[in-house]
Amino acid sequence: MKKLMILAAACGVLTALPAAAQFQKPEDAVKYRKASFTVMGTHFARIGAMAQGRVPFDGAAAAANADIVVTLSKLPFAGFVEGTGGTEKGMPNAKVWSEKAKFDAAGKKMQDEVVKLAAAAKTNNLDQLKSAFGAAAGTCKACHDDFRNQ
Amino acid sequence: MKKLMILAAACGVLTALPAAAQFQKPEDAVKYRKASFTVMGTHFARIGAMAQGRVPFDGAAAAANADIVVTLSKLPFAGFVEGTGGTEKGMPNAKVWSEKAKFDAAGKKMQDEVVKLAAAAKTNNLDQLKSAFGAAAGTCKACHDDFRNQ
Repeated sequence: MKKLMILAAACGVLTALPAAAQFQKPEDAVKYRKASFTVMGTHFARIGAMAQGRVPFDGAAAAANADIVVTLSKLPFAGFVEGTGGTEKGMPNAKVWSEKAKFDAAGKKMQDEVVKLAAAAKTNNLDQLKSAFGAAAGTCKACHDDFRNQ
Repeated sequence: MKKLMILAAACGVLTALPAAAQFQKPEDAVKYRKASFTVMGTHFARIGAMAQGRVPFDGAAAAANADIVVTLSKLPFAGFVEGTGGTEKGMPNAKVWSEKAKFDAAGKKMQDEVVKLAAAAKTNNLDQLKSAFGAAAGTCKACHDDFRNQ
């Protein structure tokens, strides 16, 4: 067990988490959700570069990036722990929690649209990719407009 | 196209990336790799909490976390762009690039072990999970010992 503890420490597994809580400290939740959006946004951007004609269309690359986006799209919302909003630009506003059903629906809409984006990417058809990218990007903007400080 | 640009901006898709480069700026690569490790480590830690008996074993949760770890394990290495090391604690040392074959092998070893971890998680057998977790955690430590500033 001691050896496992030492090895686990190397992976950042240092502290006990209560079964009910996914994050021990509020700042862990914030760091996690930001990291999830960073990774998701990076791969989404690579599809955007193709959709917008800034890099050559590569259907296989678009599909690979979209699959990563789908996986990542499921992650950040666990990090919106109550009390981790703020007034700074880019931070979630209080409506995330006071209008939680609406926020959850906005998140679900994004998740649904990136699933469609992944399907569109697999058609290897640039026009379908553009359309699905636009719809997915629209869900980013809608949620940011409502729930993120400008 | 203009509407697509506005929507894309909401998702952080603001700047053109040359086809050959995955990151436009070195700091984007650093941010991306750190974010990838943050997400991977969070989910790896949840398995570790079970392997170490700090939370009750839940085979389905272990498997779900392990699948996320497998996806994330493939991502950070693209962010180790030459010239993005440093001397600060926690930053990659120069051997990442001067001993690139060894670094790549260490990354591959981690990727292989987390695939085994995901398979072990799916057996719903805690002893198998513990063993596979220990092996995967060992690959974190080995790589950190060699390639990360202490």
